[in-house]
Amino acid sequence: MIGVLGGMGPLATLDFFSKVLAATPAVGDADHVPLLIQSDPRIAPRPAAILSSGPSPLPQLLAGRDRLIAAGATALAMPCNTAHFWMADLLNGCGVPFISIVDACIGELRKLAPAGAPIGLIATRATLAAKIFDAPLLHAGYSPLLPDDHMMDTLVLPGIELVKAGHPAQGGPLIEQAVHTLLSRGAGAVALACTETPLALDAVQSPLRNQCVDSTAALARACVVWWQAELAKNR
Amino acid sequence: MIGVLGGMGPLATLDFFSKVLAATPAVGDADHVPLLIQSDPRIAPRPAAILSSGPSPLPQLLAGRDRLIAAGATALAMPCNTAHFWMADLLNGCGVPFISIVDACIGELRKLAPAGAPIGLIATRATLAAKIFDAPLLHAGYSPLLPDDHMMDTLVLPGIELVKAGHPAQGGPLIEQAVHTLLSRGAGAVALACTETPLALDAVQSPLRNQCVDSTAALARACVVWWQAELAKNR
Repeated sequence: MIGVLGGMGPLATLDFFSKVLAATPAVGDADHVPLLIQSDPRIAPRPAAILSSGPSPLPQLLAGRDRLIAAGATALAMPCNTAHFWMADLLNGCGVPFISIVDACIGELRKLAPAGAPIGLIATRATLAAKIFDAPLLHAGYSPLLPDDHMMDTLVLPGIELVKAGHPAQGGPLIEQAVHTLLSRGAGAVALACTETPLALDAVQSPLRNQCVDSTAALARACVVWWQAELAKNR
Repeated sequence: MIGVLGGMGPLATLDFFSKVLAATPAVGDADHVPLLIQSDPRIAPRPAAILSSGPSPLPQLLAGRDRLIAAGATALAMPCNTAHFWMADLLNGCGVPFISIVDACIGELRKLAPAGAPIGLIATRATLAAKIFDAPLLHAGYSPLLPDDHMMDTLVLPGIELVKAGHPAQGGPLIEQAVHTLLSRGAGAVALACTETPLALDAVQSPLRNQCVDSTAALARACVVWWQAELAKNR
């Protein structure tokens, strides 16, 4: 059973659950991955903890981690890019594998872009400021290519807000323009490292979608792969 | 935190999660209901246990119940109509409130049909055979009106199968015809007591939808109401 440390926000957790089911080669119900999903929206806001001096969510994240493991989770996943800022702390003393959204995303980027390529990053200000993807991308042989301030203010952040407000089709052209700009500046592929942005591109059926990796979907697929491997081991 | 005994099947649990979020008057993430969702598709099939002599899912249901309570659930819900066959056993020794899909559904039927009215029931053969809604409907002053065998074989069951196979718009006209027939036979309202059937009617934007209660949505709304009342108590 995979424990899911979610609720950051609840809609992103719902989207992740949906993508796990979609990624499962299931004939019947019994072929699906057993999940224990904590959707706890009371976890302290991650952007405020990173960008200003808001309270740290770490104690709540650790409590959630330990609750899921005590309840029988044999692996963990966390469908929130920003919360991976605390990944090292969450790995510390964690008795089960923790499937990283960053590693899952980079694993799928390898299918789109050769080593050494610049990788465009579409993310919230907190994820970018915390450099959550930067070091792992460099370590994997890529160079992160970030949106400039003007792109953030006019395209990325308004696009994310439109999805959050329930208008993904209105956010679509903004996120698409941001992806287009990063590709025209040399990105070999673009990481959609914010849960809202794939929904915006999907809503407008953007042809640029196949040059992007949806980090939520990548994490979902990595969870299905992990579960299938566990099943094979125990067969 | 509301514990959700799910995975019967996983898509119904996803639909329930989605309906809880949709039913929540949320301005921001923090207004959402904290949930701990067990989506365990390994629970023994309920129809086989009821209709033939398949293994009982009760031991697994009790283990799930106790796991969720031990992990901090202060109430429980189970988004599966058929599994409510074991409701009395699940209530036995259960230390927290268990929000019933049957009671939630009947609560919403009261807004559509006066006491004494016949209530049409659209459900799987197992839910009908186990009379899961019959006694509670009678107790609430209604008389259950069941589909006949011909309707089950030509409309209800093929309609459910089409939704399960990923073709809700093809199932729509079949379920709509079943609802229409029950209404024309005198039903004051129809209970959609099978998780797939509301998806079929929604896919064809059926005008009969507002004479029906979606039991999954009714349970979702009952959970939100329960949580809001708890918040108010602790304020």
